[in-house]
Amino acid sequence: MLVDGEWRTGAYESTNEDGEFDRQETSFRNWVRDEDDAEFPAESGRYHLYISRACPWAHRAAMTRRLKGLEDAISLSVVEPVRIDDGWEFSEEYPDPLHGEEYLRDIYVRADEDFTGRVTVPVLWDTEKETIVNNESREIMRMLNTEFDDHAKRDVDLWPEGHREEVEEILDDIYDPINNGVYRAGFAKSQDAYEEAVDDLFDALDRWESVLEDNRFLAGDVLTEADIAMFVTLVRFDHVYHTHFKCNRRAIHEYPNLWDYAKELAQLPGVEETINLDHIKRHYYESHGDVNPSRIVATGPDIDFFESHDRDRLTADLPESFRGDAAPADD
Amino acid sequence: MLVDGEWRTGAYESTNEDGEFDRQETSFRNWVRDEDDAEFPAESGRYHLYISRACPWAHRAAMTRRLKGLEDAISLSVVEPVRIDDGWEFSEEYPDPLHGEEYLRDIYVRADEDFTGRVTVPVLWDTEKETIVNNESREIMRMLNTEFDDHAKRDVDLWPEGHREEVEEILDDIYDPINNGVYRAGFAKSQDAYEEAVDDLFDALDRWESVLEDNRFLAGDVLTEADIAMFVTLVRFDHVYHTHFKCNRRAIHEYPNLWDYAKELAQLPGVEETINLDHIKRHYYESHGDVNPSRIVATGPDIDFFESHDRDRLTADLPESFRGDAAPADD
Repeated sequence: MLVDGEWRTGAYESTNEDGEFDRQETSFRNWVRDEDDAEFPAESGRYHLYISRACPWAHRAAMTRRLKGLEDAISLSVVEPVRIDDGWEFSEEYPDPLHGEEYLRDIYVRADEDFTGRVTVPVLWDTEKETIVNNESREIMRMLNTEFDDHAKRDVDLWPEGHREEVEEILDDIYDPINNGVYRAGFAKSQDAYEEAVDDLFDALDRWESVLEDNRFLAGDVLTEADIAMFVTLVRFDHVYHTHFKCNRRAIHEYPNLWDYAKELAQLPGVEETINLDHIKRHYYESHGDVNPSRIVATGPDIDFFESHDRDRLTADLPESFRGDAAPADD
Repeated sequence: MLVDGEWRTGAYESTNEDGEFDRQETSFRNWVRDEDDAEFPAESGRYHLYISRACPWAHRAAMTRRLKGLEDAISLSVVEPVRIDDGWEFSEEYPDPLHGEEYLRDIYVRADEDFTGRVTVPVLWDTEKETIVNNESREIMRMLNTEFDDHAKRDVDLWPEGHREEVEEILDDIYDPINNGVYRAGFAKSQDAYEEAVDDLFDALDRWESVLEDNRFLAGDVLTEADIAMFVTLVRFDHVYHTHFKCNRRAIHEYPNLWDYAKELAQLPGVEETINLDHIKRHYYESHGDVNPSRIVATGPDIDFFESHDRDRLTADLPESFRGDAAPADD
């Protein structure tokens, strides 16, 4: 599926000669800026997010949008959870509200008629210039946090002064072993590649378990983008990565601190509306015929992100707007 | 692979039109009896067990042999753990000590030159008549318990008077949802068949978890064949069935009573020598290309059957020979 000049829409997971998973680069890397004369100025009602509820990278964007309270400023639509031969699709239930297209690749072609690369979510779409601004989750998360404060319903800064370098370091640090590590384990084509991925993953989880013993969040007592990046992997872990990707040394609900931390994040206002375990499970189990030929969806485990947690034992510098209220569930 | 008259040696898992796993019948059903004029009289040194360390059905026979102390009376050999196109194989490391054959099917053909059925373990072989006595695990377990007392090093009765009917009922009761239930889940070809199997499995596990709260063993305070049948599934559960067969609603180590019960059984004298987690994991993950195309072996979970347990809180009518000593590890 990776021949140059051909569509890479379906199961485009690629491995190198050592059987290691190689994630391909994203293609659109422009920036919305909170400046009137910017090429893509931050304006309410102008940008649209195409996401999948299944995809952890897309979840970063959807979760940032909710935590900031950008539901009125940036519209959002969801694609079909299962991605087979033709890649991410729209449907009657999950339509393309802007152009009525059939496939997400059609949106990419609207942005670049010669586009033949990977068709991924999230996509940040500019309805005025009719193009893709950016499809790199870390950059979209940053833009939504940093450039849309005039349009945000909540006074929340997920990349706060005094922690910026640390957040960048954590985002870098958790990407390879954790966020992408579960894919490295699950798509490995050799025992060595799998075992290296699993060792990296659980070494990193063990390390963060220990950090979270004394720290409310990854960067201390303040919630940041790093927590979003960690959460979107944790929330999928026990339901999908543990079984489907064979990351079964330990479940997240068996780590006291990571589990309570994940529960606290799931319970922040608006986050529940961004979690769709049905889409998550169906996507992975049904889309990856090369990992799971029967495409049967595992039903376990029996865990609940909305049970009580004990994170209040640790100090937290949380915005007032995170204490108790919840944004309307409109997406 | 199930055409009449053809070899069924490799991945002979068959499903019906509803996608449900159908286990095929075993073929040899004769009995060794503790009678001098029996067709197959119980004699020391006459019978041989062919087993796989991977297979739970074979494990029943190997475990009964060790618990009874029949190592000197009944010899035992082990086949290669991974079963691919040609079925269970012998090798340099795991040879056929009796005939030097290459495949287990050759043993079946020695017993019946027209044999074309399923080639399974355990096989109880008569070295005098040069034939298979029996290849049905439940019957072999019963024979080893009941017919070889003159040759057993331990005074242990796993089908004791006063509990015989109950043991039969438990063996019947746990077969479909638990012993075979994990296979029904793992080899299901439809979501409905899978979910029905998983529901049956965890309903049954939940029920026995509750029984084991107040009972040391399945039939009360006495160890029986029923415990062997349960143990051989439990010992494989978290390492294989949970992930490879998608039985991931809950792990056995998350059930307080089942987990401690499994640990106690693993720690009975001689049982450790019958457990080979390497063979177990490699067999399932590497043999079932239709379930696990990469044939990568999952490394988790990080659990230990030889940690302490709290079953001593319950009364047990255990043979004296089970208190502390261990039979020599010769198999």
